[in-house]
Amino acid sequence: MNIDHSVPSTELQDIIDQARERKRARLNQIAQWQYLQFIGQFKSIPEGTAIFDNALIFGYPKIGRILQIDTGIQAQLEHPFWIEEKIDGYNVRIFRQGNDILVLTRRGYLCPFTMDRLADLLNIRIFDERPDLVLCAEVAGPGNPYNEGSPPFVSEDVQLFVFDIMCRGQPGCLSQREKLQLVEAYDLPGVPQYGRYQLADLDKIKALMLKLDQEGREGIVLKEDSPRDRRVKYVTGSSNIADIQVNEGNIQQLPAEYFMHRILRLALFIEEHHLESTPDMHRVLGESLVNGTLNAVEQYRGKRKVYNTFRCRFRHRSNAELMMQAMKRRLGNGQVKQRRLNREGDFYILEFDKILPRTTGTLAQILKGGIIFD
Amino acid sequence: MNIDHSVPSTELQDIIDQARERKRARLNQIAQWQYLQFIGQFKSIPEGTAIFDNALIFGYPKIGRILQIDTGIQAQLEHPFWIEEKIDGYNVRIFRQGNDILVLTRRGYLCPFTMDRLADLLNIRIFDERPDLVLCAEVAGPGNPYNEGSPPFVSEDVQLFVFDIMCRGQPGCLSQREKLQLVEAYDLPGVPQYGRYQLADLDKIKALMLKLDQEGREGIVLKEDSPRDRRVKYVTGSSNIADIQVNEGNIQQLPAEYFMHRILRLALFIEEHHLESTPDMHRVLGESLVNGTLNAVEQYRGKRKVYNTFRCRFRHRSNAELMMQAMKRRLGNGQVKQRRLNREGDFYILEFDKILPRTTGTLAQILKGGIIFD
Repeated sequence: MNIDHSVPSTELQDIIDQARERKRARLNQIAQWQYLQFIGQFKSIPEGTAIFDNALIFGYPKIGRILQIDTGIQAQLEHPFWIEEKIDGYNVRIFRQGNDILVLTRRGYLCPFTMDRLADLLNIRIFDERPDLVLCAEVAGPGNPYNEGSPPFVSEDVQLFVFDIMCRGQPGCLSQREKLQLVEAYDLPGVPQYGRYQLADLDKIKALMLKLDQEGREGIVLKEDSPRDRRVKYVTGSSNIADIQVNEGNIQQLPAEYFMHRILRLALFIEEHHLESTPDMHRVLGESLVNGTLNAVEQYRGKRKVYNTFRCRFRHRSNAELMMQAMKRRLGNGQVKQRRLNREGDFYILEFDKILPRTTGTLAQILKGGIIFD
Repeated sequence: MNIDHSVPSTELQDIIDQARERKRARLNQIAQWQYLQFIGQFKSIPEGTAIFDNALIFGYPKIGRILQIDTGIQAQLEHPFWIEEKIDGYNVRIFRQGNDILVLTRRGYLCPFTMDRLADLLNIRIFDERPDLVLCAEVAGPGNPYNEGSPPFVSEDVQLFVFDIMCRGQPGCLSQREKLQLVEAYDLPGVPQYGRYQLADLDKIKALMLKLDQEGREGIVLKEDSPRDRRVKYVTGSSNIADIQVNEGNIQQLPAEYFMHRILRLALFIEEHHLESTPDMHRVLGESLVNGTLNAVEQYRGKRKVYNTFRCRFRHRSNAELMMQAMKRRLGNGQVKQRRLNREGDFYILEFDKILPRTTGTLAQILKGGIIFD
């Protein structure tokens, strides 16, 4: 078993004190769990880092994005690299804390939904033998409480895909080889692996990307097989169209850059992979943008607010209630509204609306005849 | 003749001193003209205000935009109002300074192009009798040096349309009646007038908007016929599509909000005027977004920069040279490149490229394989 590095050093303690003083870290409590959460990167501490009594769980490291696969690989990677699938879901870190298995989101919030469903999603016996490990995974599917989109191969509820393993008290991830061994040894649901490539394998990689693009998959993460463990990510053209389509309800909510940057990624994918910019693609994009906005206007006229509705399965009613409580605390009491919570077979179904505050505010102002200076 | 209020009061002098100290006003010099230019609004002084030796030219007042014509009129206007056409060009203020007639852009730059062409654009004899006046006008057409778009009814070169008249040394505009009298008396080219309306004339105004929409015109400015001279502006749905189309070359250059806000305005126009959101419209929008970006990539691959080309007619070679010099000083020496300047009939034709620095920088970074964190 690895040594547990979770007891903070003096140097780390200084950073923690400074972060608290400058409100870059705050105490969070949900049910019986209290912890210190880092908001955004602070000095050497990544966003989403969480400190429990005796455990320091570092935030998941950021991975840079390339928008050109050929020059991107040449410029960013120096050694052979692994390619694995990038899954379109939400990023979690799973670890043992006393007798509980806890789940943190990317930004360091405990997630009652994932914790409730953990036994359905993976075999947690790994923590009996290796309580020092932190599993990094993507949870994806139409039954998730955070995102509009989900991969085409998860047709209902959610699935979990482990893509990295960290150690408590340590930043960064285990090597790809160590991770693959642990995934195999403990029968974990890992992300699809596409193998180990050389810098010269560009044609093979381009062929892989075209296949993933046609299958509607999000993209790949490239992990250098070297001590520095350099990583980059790269997405398919079709994932950009899908992002815009599934987020058509969020068009005046998300930053405008969300949409315009995906147009840029799409154009660069079309260009590099010699695809066609077709009238059908144009129509789909324009339709999402215009009709997404029209639907928001229609929803506002009917309900005086614009919202998205989510529907998730829970094993325990108390966890569904905890999820509502956590979201209300995070987003504001009036911003989340429970529609229903009732038993259906083996599950409790929680249905809730999340208000889109920016869309609602903009439309309220405009539709009552307000003026805008631009 | 009106009293000339152009000598600053003590109070004004204090604001000027503060603005200079805080770098919110700066000395500008072009050819023999030196003046103080206000950058952005500072206290009571609007953006674009300019102070010459003995003349204070206030910036043109901002006009708020409504995105719903029915509630907008009800909420913003209390009295009958004039409606006139909003022209899609660049905003200038024209005034006499000694023996010269000078032209300031909205942001307070002297414009050698408009100054050169003034005799072609309007009868300047008004300044012989009324040197106290400042004409506020839109200059529009495909031969302008600033904008990609131009109105469908200006097929070549540029035209000028007076929409307001200010007095030297005074903020705000003359009343609509005074303006119309002066436009008539001095045979000035005024913007098209659509008459005087009551708050109850909503149906007539909606019919007017549909007509302007079909004709591809930009929109209207509504000016309350009251001492407070309240104004709002409102644009057609088609002008938003046109803005996106003509700016497809600027897609990664302009702020993302430029495009997403036009989608919002378009959707609101469609909804209020019961128009259809058609596949053709969607295709046109999607095509501009994707192909505009593809064209920028292609241009970058060929030339290692992305730029727009402008072509303007000048009467005097020296003014074309002054225009190049002014743009280089404002945008940076390497950002503007003269392609040609030669005589053609009665004109000198200046053709120049304006680099799109943000697009060029983004594509340079991406195409060499750089990473982006988002």
